[in-house]
Amino acid sequence: MVRIAVLGAGRIGRIHARNVAENPAATLVAIADPFGTAAADLAAQLSSEASLDPVETIERADVDAVVIGTPTDTHVDLLLHAVRRGKAVLCEKPIDLDLARVDEAVAEIARLDGRVMLAFNRRFDPSARELRNAIDAGEIGEVRQVVISSRDPGLPPASYLGSSGGIFRDMTIHDFDMARWFLGEEPVEISAIGSRVVDRALMETADDYDTVMVQMRTASGRQCHINNCREAVYGYDQRFEIFGSQGALFNDNLRPTTVRRWTREATDAREPLLNFFLERYADAYKGEMAAFVDALANSKPMPVGPHDGRQALLLADRALESLLTGKTVAL
Amino acid sequence: MVRIAVLGAGRIGRIHARNVAENPAATLVAIADPFGTAAADLAAQLSSEASLDPVETIERADVDAVVIGTPTDTHVDLLLHAVRRGKAVLCEKPIDLDLARVDEAVAEIARLDGRVMLAFNRRFDPSARELRNAIDAGEIGEVRQVVISSRDPGLPPASYLGSSGGIFRDMTIHDFDMARWFLGEEPVEISAIGSRVVDRALMETADDYDTVMVQMRTASGRQCHINNCREAVYGYDQRFEIFGSQGALFNDNLRPTTVRRWTREATDAREPLLNFFLERYADAYKGEMAAFVDALANSKPMPVGPHDGRQALLLADRALESLLTGKTVAL
Amino acid sequence: MVRIAVLGAGRIGRIHARNVAENPAATLVAIADPFGTAAADLAAQLSSEASLDPVETIERADVDAVVIGTPTDTHVDLLLHAVRRGKAVLCEKPIDLDLARVDEAVAEIARLDGRVMLAFNRRFDPSARELRNAIDAGEIGEVRQVVISSRDPGLPPASYLGSSGGIFRDMTIHDFDMARWFLGEEPVEISAIGSRVVDRALMETADDYDTVMVQMRTASGRQCHINNCREAVYGYDQRFEIFGSQGALFNDNLRPTTVRRWTREATDAREPLLNFFLERYADAYKGEMAAFVDALANSKPMPVGPHDGRQALLLADRALESLLTGKTVAL
Amino acid sequence: MVRIAVLGAGRIGRIHARNVAENPAATLVAIADPFGTAAADLAAQLSSEASLDPVETIERADVDAVVIGTPTDTHVDLLLHAVRRGKAVLCEKPIDLDLARVDEAVAEIARLDGRVMLAFNRRFDPSARELRNAIDAGEIGEVRQVVISSRDPGLPPASYLGSSGGIFRDMTIHDFDMARWFLGEEPVEISAIGSRVVDRALMETADDYDTVMVQMRTASGRQCHINNCREAVYGYDQRFEIFGSQGALFNDNLRPTTVRRWTREATDAREPLLNFFLERYADAYKGEMAAFVDALANSKPMPVGPHDGRQALLLADRALESLLTGKTVAL
Repeated sequence: MVRIAVLGAGRIGRIHARNVAENPAATLVAIADPFGTAAADLAAQLSSEASLDPVETIERADVDAVVIGTPTDTHVDLLLHAVRRGKAVLCEKPIDLDLARVDEAVAEIARLDGRVMLAFNRRFDPSARELRNAIDAGEIGEVRQVVISSRDPGLPPASYLGSSGGIFRDMTIHDFDMARWFLGEEPVEISAIGSRVVDRALMETADDYDTVMVQMRTASGRQCHINNCREAVYGYDQRFEIFGSQGALFNDNLRPTTVRRWTREATDAREPLLNFFLERYADAYKGEMAAFVDALANSKPMPVGPHDGRQALLLADRALESLLTGKTVAL
Repeated sequence: MVRIAVLGAGRIGRIHARNVAENPAATLVAIADPFGTAAADLAAQLSSEASLDPVETIERADVDAVVIGTPTDTHVDLLLHAVRRGKAVLCEKPIDLDLARVDEAVAEIARLDGRVMLAFNRRFDPSARELRNAIDAGEIGEVRQVVISSRDPGLPPASYLGSSGGIFRDMTIHDFDMARWFLGEEPVEISAIGSRVVDRALMETADDYDTVMVQMRTASGRQCHINNCREAVYGYDQRFEIFGSQGALFNDNLRPTTVRRWTREATDAREPLLNFFLERYADAYKGEMAAFVDALANSKPMPVGPHDGRQALLLADRALESLLTGKTVAL
Repeated sequence: MVRIAVLGAGRIGRIHARNVAENPAATLVAIADPFGTAAADLAAQLSSEASLDPVETIERADVDAVVIGTPTDTHVDLLLHAVRRGKAVLCEKPIDLDLARVDEAVAEIARLDGRVMLAFNRRFDPSARELRNAIDAGEIGEVRQVVISSRDPGLPPASYLGSSGGIFRDMTIHDFDMARWFLGEEPVEISAIGSRVVDRALMETADDYDTVMVQMRTASGRQCHINNCREAVYGYDQRFEIFGSQGALFNDNLRPTTVRRWTREATDAREPLLNFFLERYADAYKGEMAAFVDALANSKPMPVGPHDGRQALLLADRALESLLTGKTVAL
Repeated sequence: MVRIAVLGAGRIGRIHARNVAENPAATLVAIADPFGTAAADLAAQLSSEASLDPVETIERADVDAVVIGTPTDTHVDLLLHAVRRGKAVLCEKPIDLDLARVDEAVAEIARLDGRVMLAFNRRFDPSARELRNAIDAGEIGEVRQVVISSRDPGLPPASYLGSSGGIFRDMTIHDFDMARWFLGEEPVEISAIGSRVVDRALMETADDYDTVMVQMRTASGRQCHINNCREAVYGYDQRFEIFGSQGALFNDNLRPTTVRRWTREATDAREPLLNFFLERYADAYKGEMAAFVDALANSKPMPVGPHDGRQALLLADRALESLLTGKTVAL
């Protein structure tokens, strides 16, 4: 049994805590959150213990591993503290919004031989995983182009935007990780464009963009396109297209049911897409936790490491640079 | 060049005439229709000759073959006249509404060694043909069940219903032919049910049914279900499912375009189905004419013969018998 | 908290026990199974208690309700015993293979005012439920035709066939329930055909059929077709089509992922269907248990009652009668 | 009757000539091609006249309009000659590979008030047109992102590559036109990347790229992505996605039939895509000719003008500049 504590009892912490509790190879030892009764409420639901002190929780002798689901600006300190105490870590993305700080943390983790997994949950979505398996099995030969469409159902609150680090570090970062994973090679060149077409005033205030496109190339010539928008009225849009020398692979979005409607106005009409990431990626979060527990229980390498978090952030930073300068940026 | 005359310049005659005219291996010698200016108008459009006399037209020395697209009750006389004069015939279905009369005609054609093709156009629909090719290629092993959904977009005029011979002889007859074609064996047993749910009063007046289901079995145990309705608000519905020991085959309906719409209310919404048989089976009519001309030009056997018309009518008659008696009818 | 015991620790009992254990409004008090260590093993996994004696378990003071997942021939005795002790029951279908015995049981339950739910799990499948909701909302107007395709991935073991009661009572029974549910009216007429095309020898030995079609009509003229086969190489096939005066509704099968493959040979190729009912209807079993617990916790009427079990069995019996006599059977 | 001559009897000339011949509002007066018997052969098939001299054919008194389907380097001369003689022109793209020459020609046409339509056939594809109609009808609100996937089934012969002007001027040029058409605004910024992954040696020899991506932005912030590849094993891939503030629109590729196959290995497998533009865009070529004839017969404005050809070529030139310099190019 892997003994796990979850740090942070917000939206994402609750998902992780539940998945630890339901995982037959893991025990949810404790939940820590300094704010109000969040940890206590969640612990009561899941028959676990609550704490207001994440640091103390990390240090508990009966804790083998921690899941970090606290606000981004606390990640690095908690992560390094856990690593120094010999605890394994599943850390929510991003490690930090500042690349230099991330680089230091990654170096320190390497020095200490820390066991750290980055929470890029989409890699554990069953369909995304099947895409990757098919690529690995050579079903489409050499990958030539990756096309990623990724749109949120609606704008986040203005308060969130201010501390999000901007669309590339907050939203596209997931797509950068998927791009690297599907390309199988590091991009060497990136260019990006951005627009303020959903809510111009809000975006100007936040110094952010609500609609972006990114274009990348690897050394061997593989190409990737990413499009993002903060608002899609039809739901949370998550599509991948992998085109290779021997074929192409696609996934589809998820809907609540498989029902199709035929009427005088339309045929084959399906429901709008599942609304947001907690529903859409429910299986992915479960699979992510299972992979983390499996890596710990069976001494396997972490399936996603700190370096992956660093590379995705680097791409986000360079995309912003390209957008601001109007130049393609070499990596 | 196969020299062809078209008898009948109504809706179906116009289709055939145009397809003869466009077929590079055929010449449209004449169009005959005793009513008004129909033949003349059509002949003007297609640079052909017009006549008010179908019999005379059959007898023209420069006519090798005739297409019979006149009212049903004239089919047998014109058909036999043409056969006796040594002309090949493409005859619209049904040969006649009376099975005894059809049997006599079929026997006479056989006696005279007539070259007659029955116009079961759906066999020449590219998708239907691909289904049959896949069956023949053994892709789904032994056929076990055939499911046919076939619904018209709307009720015909009351005047038409009176002389249609009833839903089984008028509408299901096409599905009976497809059933025989896909089953690859003759049904030995049939049962049918009928309802008056689209327009009860109209159906009572016409002594007909607007909604039916049919169930059949062959000697080796292959099964077939057919459903029909005279009215489907979403368009003209034409679907086949062929289930076999090694897989299954399906076709889809046709829409005007491939556009899919995603909105707040629905995703993947497509247009209603192509509205009726002239549009839906435009390619099938072309293919039918091409097969007729090819059989004549290259002395091949007719792809659909009078016996096929007789068998489909027999099934229609027995379906009605089953509906009226509430019994399964042996064939 | 509704306190529930599960009787039977076989395949279906395990599903129910797990769903009780995971339901936040229920407690899994005990699992009873007279055979070997099945109950003990399952109880250990789910932190519950085990018993070898279902009757004793029913009588426990701390048991409010029981789930009957034992062999069919024990259903009636356990069911009535529970009802007499004032316990609510979720009973697997069929109540019994003998209609007279079922009628007695249903009458006795009514006399005792028993709280009994029949486990027709498919009614709780999210897509099936959405179909029914759309019908209830009037989206397709009046229902005219229901078409049900339902095929198993492979033959059950010969030993199972002997005691299954035949394909209509074992397999079609689910489709009969769905037919009644979607039709919204009782059938008044049924006819059925059956074949032995998957394994003739096995079916002759078992005096059963592996491939059947059923046709039914209600008093107002609604129609229903069901097709079944014990073997479909592409997986577990579960499709409904509901055709009405204002449109039509369809569900689709489930696959492991949404991946589509394009290669030189084919495009849009998806994976074979989820293999069998435990996977395909996992959500339906959860929903069924949630509905049972909800009915008990909130004193709601049972969503599926003993009468529904009786009616489905009646249809199965009459279908067999029709198949054997070659006649349509009035109900 | 619009009297039309077709210049060029190669692959594209044959399509146009046949569509003129079949158009009921037009007459195919003549076909001119200086090479061998091409014009004579085609004229024989279509009951028209042949000439070896395009210039003479333009000058015929009985010619109202010409279709230019000759090699690219002859377009400008023939086009201007026709315009000067007061003839209307449907000119294959591109007008010329040299932007300066195109600018001169466009200016000259304007000066002479010439009636010239550019043959961007894809605008007349029924699905593309429906996308545009839906945009115009406001169905998806304001356009935000356009995603175009456009891949050829296989590499052209090396000889063709040398004179093609490169992938942007030869292949992407169609996508640039569709981008402008769907965006409803001119791009102000473009960046492009290119790879040689299909056939590196061939591409180095031809100084060309076989796989490219392009990214564009309009002044109001609308974005467009285009991806191209010279080889896709699954067929000719032509997909558009238009994402707007109120929804999204998609088209699908065309296959020979609608058949779907279910087997042990896969479900819903469809045929590979229609192989190339002559089949895929057969309806578009017909629609294009109908629009040209309609504009002439009814004195309507040309639906696609020389300026559209000029703008698409400009985008192609700037895309190449961006690829070569690694910089985003302002327009």
